[in-house]
Amino acid sequence: MKYNFKITGFGNYLPSKVETSEEISKKINKSEDWIISRTGIKSRRVSEIDVDEMGAIAAREAIGNKKKPDLIINASGVPKQTIPDTSVFIQKELGYSGIPSFSVHSTCLSFITALNVAGSFIHTDSYKNILIVSSDRGTRGRNFNEPESASILGDAAAAVYLEKTKEDSGLIDFEMGTFPDGSDLTEVRGGGTNLHPQDSQTKFEDNLFSMKGPKVFKFTLPKVYRMISNILKRNKLGQRDINLLIPHQASGKAIAAYSKFGGFLDDQVMNIISDSGNCVAASLPLALVEAHKANKINKDDIVFLVGTGAGLSIASAIIKV
Amino acid sequence: MKYNFKITGFGNYLPSKVETSEEISKKINKSEDWIISRTGIKSRRVSEIDVDEMGAIAAREAIGNKKKPDLIINASGVPKQTIPDTSVFIQKELGYSGIPSFSVHSTCLSFITALNVAGSFIHTDSYKNILIVSSDRGTRGRNFNEPESASILGDAAAAVYLEKTKEDSGLIDFEMGTFPDGSDLTEVRGGGTNLHPQDSQTKFEDNLFSMKGPKVFKFTLPKVYRMISNILKRNKLGQRDINLLIPHQASGKAIAAYSKFGGFLDDQVMNIISDSGNCVAASLPLALVEAHKANKINKDDIVFLVGTGAGLSIASAIIKV
Repeated sequence: MKYNFKITGFGNYLPSKVETSEEISKKINKSEDWIISRTGIKSRRVSEIDVDEMGAIAAREAIGNKKKPDLIINASGVPKQTIPDTSVFIQKELGYSGIPSFSVHSTCLSFITALNVAGSFIHTDSYKNILIVSSDRGTRGRNFNEPESASILGDAAAAVYLEKTKEDSGLIDFEMGTFPDGSDLTEVRGGGTNLHPQDSQTKFEDNLFSMKGPKVFKFTLPKVYRMISNILKRNKLGQRDINLLIPHQASGKAIAAYSKFGGFLDDQVMNIISDSGNCVAASLPLALVEAHKANKINKDDIVFLVGTGAGLSIASAIIKV
Repeated sequence: MKYNFKITGFGNYLPSKVETSEEISKKINKSEDWIISRTGIKSRRVSEIDVDEMGAIAAREAIGNKKKPDLIINASGVPKQTIPDTSVFIQKELGYSGIPSFSVHSTCLSFITALNVAGSFIHTDSYKNILIVSSDRGTRGRNFNEPESASILGDAAAAVYLEKTKEDSGLIDFEMGTFPDGSDLTEVRGGGTNLHPQDSQTKFEDNLFSMKGPKVFKFTLPKVYRMISNILKRNKLGQRDINLLIPHQASGKAIAAYSKFGGFLDDQVMNIISDSGNCVAASLPLALVEAHKANKINKDDIVFLVGTGAGLSIASAIIKV
């Protein structure tokens, strides 16, 4: 076991407001069928509260009646504001003070990256109880002139609570790669020093989400396939040894690729995209939490977390539950 | 030793363009003396290239002729853009591809936080050669209607290269605390989902840096004092056992407090604020790199890194060089 820990708390928040693909079809001037056939998404949630409140609801459920965490990591795609980082506002919503907190950012892979950081910290006895929260409100950044990307985004939050354990559970292996050749395929170009909100040349759409979906798919497919093969081989595992593959919910096509090209069976792959869309960094932990709640993962199961994110980056984490 | 590693590469970038306090005095309608007496800053640098290029210059110097890193962590305060995170653009500037990269964000404490993450990763053999880059261009976010905060900001980048070592060096101890009561004392309220650039209610100044300096000082002083006392005591060290204290360069007054109230001698405290100002997350590693270049830290020295950041957060790291 690379890092020994146990996930003892799971929480999520799905906003009550549902936006169907029929409803969004009018905003993007496409048919409901066009959306569903391209993205696999029938509906997504739209949050009326901000990312810190969303994250805190998921976090409270993950913490339950356990002791307060000794570290809080925000692992989201888009922040509440530029400064301070969102972990501060989540801690504030939770009513805590004094707990060290910071953010880890690798867009849609933020959760998997934070899990690697948290696992290392628990393994080295630096922290004993770590809360990881992913909360994204992608619907705030939709560009309705870009129909495909606008129709995939949904809002959600998810949280997990990690503890030190004497059981044989934790992170078995982790791998990540970042390929800046693909940096312009998924972007929000504004919001920083590049196209600052105060600059006259910054356009409205620079502050909105932009994704060249088909190019991302083509760019990442062989890389993800190679990474999966390598990490399985290195750990003497085959696809059938994996109890559940939990991918980032990028799009229906991206999720289907794990069975179509990746050697997994359809029912080995967690797929929740139809009713919640692509929730940026919250998608992967949301799928993990939903799998837990549906009893799809059990003690000693081998779970494979995998995804792609803006960068473009790809990452895999094999965990024993 | 909590985490065993060695810092084997140091690099920095200070833009060539100097803005004196006399020059900035006209923009904020205050005298040069007003600025210098309040902030201790005589001049700051203003970058004409963006944070990724700045960071890559510092990184190239830190890497030198060593092998390419197997992990890149961006540890800056403000990103180049919302998505992807800045680590991707730094990697792109360096001409690399395939190296895992992500960002750690805790505003002015991002470097010290990233050092804790990187140390843990090296200690657990997860990565062997880690590049940490802090690059900030605070002058892009100055609000000239807020004279004190506008006069403190400067631009810089700094980078370190960490390796696995058999020497007795690395991180001796680390402590951090986040106090969300102070979340409104240092802010850039825009740039995220809270006051999105597309929202009509988002004001121009929401996208600019705001800091209530005297309140930050009052809020953090007793907390920092207590943290320093605790961590020294826990490690059976006294102030005189520290070869060099390297604080975040928040302001002249904040740096002076380490000798005035913290029990250190003036010449134990690294102070570079006069000529470079507060460079957000780049300030602390810039002071570390400048101390290294000036031969102020030598093998086996005990160095105390300390600072405050938006959140408000405070953090300390004791390292053996």
